[in-house]
Amino acid sequence: MVASSDVMMLSGRLADRDALDISDWCPLERALELVGTRSAMVLLREAFWGARRFEDLARRAGITQQIAAKRLKQFVDAGIMTKQPYQRAGERRRYEYVLTDRGRALFPVVVSLISFGRMLQGDSKGLDLIHGEQCGAQTYAHVQCAEGHPVSLAQTTARIASGKNAR
Amino acid sequence: MVASSDVMMLSGRLADRDALDISDWCPLERALELVGTRSAMVLLREAFWGARRFEDLARRAGITQQIAAKRLKQFVDAGIMTKQPYQRAGERRRYEYVLTDRGRALFPVVVSLISFGRMLQGDSKGLDLIHGEQCGAQTYAHVQCAEGHPVSLAQTTARIASGKNAR
Repeated sequence: MVASSDVMMLSGRLADRDALDISDWCPLERALELVGTRSAMVLLREAFWGARRFEDLARRAGITQQIAAKRLKQFVDAGIMTKQPYQRAGERRRYEYVLTDRGRALFPVVVSLISFGRMLQGDSKGLDLIHGEQCGAQTYAHVQCAEGHPVSLAQTTARIASGKNAR
Repeated sequence: MVASSDVMMLSGRLADRDALDISDWCPLERALELVGTRSAMVLLREAFWGARRFEDLARRAGITQQIAAKRLKQFVDAGIMTKQPYQRAGERRRYEYVLTDRGRALFPVVVSLISFGRMLQGDSKGLDLIHGEQCGAQTYAHVQCAEGHPVSLAQTTARIASGKNAR
């Protein structure tokens, strides 16, 4: 067990960090393969804000259609978005890109990045996320456990999931 | 007000999304400038896991020393890490990179990306984050408001922070 007041604890085989190459199976790296680029995250921002059509997603994200098409294909392939057909009178059938439940699991990622960006900006500018119109309080991502306890960084233990064969 | 059951609400001037170019002042984009790359996030993972020395950070992150040096300089310049001198007997003075309070504000980002990556992997592999040794429950990032209410995606309203002059 390696512990400090300001970092996570590393437990079990992970405690000898230098003995493990985790790059092939670390879930953080798996997540970053899909969403670890600016273009992926700004597309997701627009999807979380309600854009569904390809042209709207690309334009509002401020990225090229070529990059948007590549990212959206990756999102559909990974199951975080689904393509739904729609057709306006006199036009050919087209597709909308809609977040799936798996995609909506990125909600805390988007919220926590916005909070962090607000802090970098000095909190006074940019966007607010609030809890609806009636409550109106600032909304942020908070770390807790499945028992409902708030969990601090120093109370968090990282360990290799059971069943995983580490190299 | 644009509302849907599965996306955020956009309030005020932001509701006319196409009328605003937010790229210069969106806090998500500001965050991504600093941490929106794989190399930045894997360095932060290792910092959250206790690495402080340049060689340890770069090697455990699995990135080149050249990239690590560039990212760590950006982190120090943005105030999310600080350089602390240390010196071992008979060696020259060197520096450790330590997360500041501003850097520790990335804790929910790291936790939420790990949770998302676990979901992509099917939850059975890779890393677990748990609430210490005594509780042992799974740890994840949860969206709530400053009043302590859980906040769903559909209950979240994005708006331009007061005092911001949008273009």
